[in-house]
Amino acid sequence: MTRVLITGGGGFIGARLARHLLSHPPASWGATSSLTLTDQYPLPIDLASDKRVTAVIGPLHDQGALFASGFDQIFHLASAVSGECELDFELGLRSNLDGTRMMLEGLRRAGNQPRLVFSSSVAVYGPDPGLAMPEMVDENTLPAPQTSYGAHKLICEYLIADYTRKGYLDGRSARLMTVCVRPGKPNGAASSFFSGIIREPLAGIVSVCPVDSNVSHPLASPQSTVLSLVGLMEASRDTLKRRLAIAFPAVNVTVAQMLDALERVAGPAVRARVTFERDERVAAIVANWPRAVKSDTATTLLGFPGDDSFDAIIRQYIDNMRASGQADTALKGLL
Amino acid sequence: MTRVLITGGGGFIGARLARHLLSHPPASWGATSSLTLTDQYPLPIDLASDKRVTAVIGPLHDQGALFASGFDQIFHLASAVSGECELDFELGLRSNLDGTRMMLEGLRRAGNQPRLVFSSSVAVYGPDPGLAMPEMVDENTLPAPQTSYGAHKLICEYLIADYTRKGYLDGRSARLMTVCVRPGKPNGAASSFFSGIIREPLAGIVSVCPVDSNVSHPLASPQSTVLSLVGLMEASRDTLKRRLAIAFPAVNVTVAQMLDALERVAGPAVRARVTFERDERVAAIVANWPRAVKSDTATTLLGFPGDDSFDAIIRQYIDNMRASGQADTALKGLL
Repeated sequence: MTRVLITGGGGFIGARLARHLLSHPPASWGATSSLTLTDQYPLPIDLASDKRVTAVIGPLHDQGALFASGFDQIFHLASAVSGECELDFELGLRSNLDGTRMMLEGLRRAGNQPRLVFSSSVAVYGPDPGLAMPEMVDENTLPAPQTSYGAHKLICEYLIADYTRKGYLDGRSARLMTVCVRPGKPNGAASSFFSGIIREPLAGIVSVCPVDSNVSHPLASPQSTVLSLVGLMEASRDTLKRRLAIAFPAVNVTVAQMLDALERVAGPAVRARVTFERDERVAAIVANWPRAVKSDTATTLLGFPGDDSFDAIIRQYIDNMRASGQADTALKGLL
Repeated sequence: MTRVLITGGGGFIGARLARHLLSHPPASWGATSSLTLTDQYPLPIDLASDKRVTAVIGPLHDQGALFASGFDQIFHLASAVSGECELDFELGLRSNLDGTRMMLEGLRRAGNQPRLVFSSSVAVYGPDPGLAMPEMVDENTLPAPQTSYGAHKLICEYLIADYTRKGYLDGRSARLMTVCVRPGKPNGAASSFFSGIIREPLAGIVSVCPVDSNVSHPLASPQSTVLSLVGLMEASRDTLKRRLAIAFPAVNVTVAQMLDALERVAGPAVRARVTFERDERVAAIVANWPRAVKSDTATTLLGFPGDDSFDAIIRQYIDNMRASGQADTALKGLL
């Protein structure tokens, strides 16, 4: 009996991870297993109505008893997002730092040395005043977060490494790449356009790119991200060795390369729906993000597949929209 | 009116810093200033009886109101030590992490953007499983703490960098070297022998070195450490630039080089009082510590003097013992 918990289990990645685990139970699950999803918002209907799922809805910081109740595997994905934490400093401390600390203490008290996969972020990297960021960052690059979100993610990585060193749990921190293509509407995140400049043209809508076409960024598909999360949970400690964070596989592309891929996959008419209008606020934020990430542990040591190319990332989105019956609207520009 | 606070103001470095500030008021102090020392133990008698000093005695975590009361400069030196925190995990979290967080929140609420100098440690460095530590670490080496003490120091560095980025305070984190020569008795710290193998022979007492003579370590004298703390507080933000931690100047020496220096300064009879008997527990701890530190910002950019040599560190100790009238006992082996 493997007892599995996903925090943020109703979110964009959390729900996809839950569906993947239910449809492809990993080797470690054995004959029986339980899956608990906790989230501050109600779960998507398919998960909420799934008899195999236990839902615990409410703020993370109310779940102290839940965390101490004895799980074997925890995917800790719940997080307030970057923009929110910049606007509300105390929210970041409370939600992303204290929430994680409460979880770690619960897991320690449970006493069963559970495996923990923690979703950290490329937001841990940045240029500190007087210290440039390398053109390509890797797992051994000195982190220099330029948001409270990134700072708290990094701090949790180091807390988890110390809990692991002490033998209280077996923690694995992963820096997730910006996930692309996100379905749905544009949101307030500065990274929203990385999905928008693909998603909107495919839907037949004009999209305005707020940064120059030579901006480069590490991206990963939802599918690649989910497979990496599962792979990191399944990896043996002897193979992984590292207690410090690893970086998940990335496709490092410029905006220009993204649009070239869009033209190859969807044609010039779709690409032509993207125009450029520089937004200084967004451009300034993006300038502090890594342009490219090298993910040695994930790709070489652990053999995570990642994405073949940005073309493949676009095709995955198109396939997903078709498979979920959303082609009429989401792919209106392609038809 | 510059209002100055030293946490751990009665401790080994804190008391020396306080005496130095009182006898050599820095440029930033102006015509008048106030000096508050807080410590969990009573202050040394000279400081306790000094009319210019305000003493606040009690645990750090009781000082929330003190921190919010409006200081202009804070030297945050108070800390539970490494060995204690390894034995008592919750002590480390409570004292070194939560204590510092409470202080940061107090300073933020005070709203006057004070300058904060934080004493971090070379204990932030180490070899992570699967990741060797470089022969010489520098300010841009990826930290990999191998004690909770080191982990919490690193976490506080990153919290302070974020509070600084947000403009809540002007924080400067410094990784202090192992201070040598500490007066007094051997204590339980694994690093105790670095002082013991100099101090005991000078006092005419045999000292047993628990590690091999090729062990190398970064050391600094008390005087160098105090001058670096003052220099970091006085440095302008425009000069310093860096929000991430800097390393204080170090004399990188092997045990063999320390003993050669002892022979040069104090003669072969003094050196002959050091014998070697390997202590596997101590040797294993020391193997996780950096062998040498490069301190570019402190030495090149900020021009901190550091120590000329390990010979000079020994001579400083001898001079201090003579000046404080302790030569009869502390230098009994030299006479």
